Amino acid sequence: MAATSAVAIRRARHADVGVIVAMLADDPLGSGRERLEDPLPPCYFGRSRCSTAIRISSSCRGGRERHRYRCLQLCILPGLSSQGASRALIEDVRVASHCRSRGIGEQLVQWAVAQARAKECKLVELLTHQTRVDAQRFYARLGFAASHVGMTLRF
Amino acid sequence: MAATSAVAIRRARHADVGVIVAMLADDPLGSGRERLEDPLPPCYFGRSRCSTAIRISSSCRGGRERHRYRCLQLCILPGLSSQGASRALIEDVRVASHCRSRGIGEQLVQWAVAQARAKECKLVELLTHQTRVDAQRFYARLGFAASHVGMTLRF
Repeated sequence: MAATSAVAIRRARHADVGVIVAMLADDPLGSGRERLEDPLPPCYFGRSRCSTAIRISSSCRGGRERHRYRCLQLCILPGLSSQGASRALIEDVRVASHCRSRGIGEQLVQWAVAQARAKECKLVELLTHQTRVDAQRFYARLGFAASHVGMTLRF
Repeated sequence: MAATSAVAIRRARHADVGVIVAMLADDPLGSGRERLEDPLPPCYFGRSRCSTAIRISSSCRGGRERHRYRCLQLCILPGLSSQGASRALIEDVRVASHCRSRGIGEQLVQWAVAQARAKECKLVELLTHQTRVDAQRFYARLGFAASHVGMTLRF
């Protein structure tokens, strides 16, 4: 059942870093990239890591009172192309594993798209790993076209 | 022959906007998206359009003394994923048509990659349209992997 009620989506704070890193690590690709240790290593707390671009929402519902967490990173980037349009870049969309398939990821991405519109972007873009076929279907359902090749260089 | 000598790459200024828009418009996809008019329409000069992320270089060589222009947009984005890594996003790479195939596009992208390394990014990413097969080969030659699907939503 889709979660249709409005849940506040806010800037992530220092205190949210643990929850966000847990979501990033709870993922086929992220599990090999993150260090989910207690306490979290300092690399997650350096210069502006938890920037204003990272958004989170949590809601507490139902008898079990388990928090529903979700997060993404949304950057609004000014530019000259497309007649001086800004564009929005969405990255690191995650929904806590115990509350997936309830529409709250869609609600979060739709919020980001609405933010992009409100800031007069003409384009929202994202890269999704080729192995994330479900994610590609998800974004296609929200109107995204698989128009580009996403190329990466890792150091 | 590759242009191997160092040419200053600097932040684009208001006075560069005309040259940059001309390069953006001189492109199979860009020709339908830009308004290369004289004078340029105000949309290219609004709030921070020509942001600090846009870089340009020009050199003047040879008997004909024609300027060699090239530009790109480079954004360094902080984040939490990959152990709090920053990532670099490259967009709108263009080389003036009369000086393509001389290695100056490669020189520019290698400069951006070096900037990303210097700023301790772990990842450089870009989206290139599926029809830009030559561009994909170009980036693959520079070490980029076609690892992702680039998805876009245009308003």
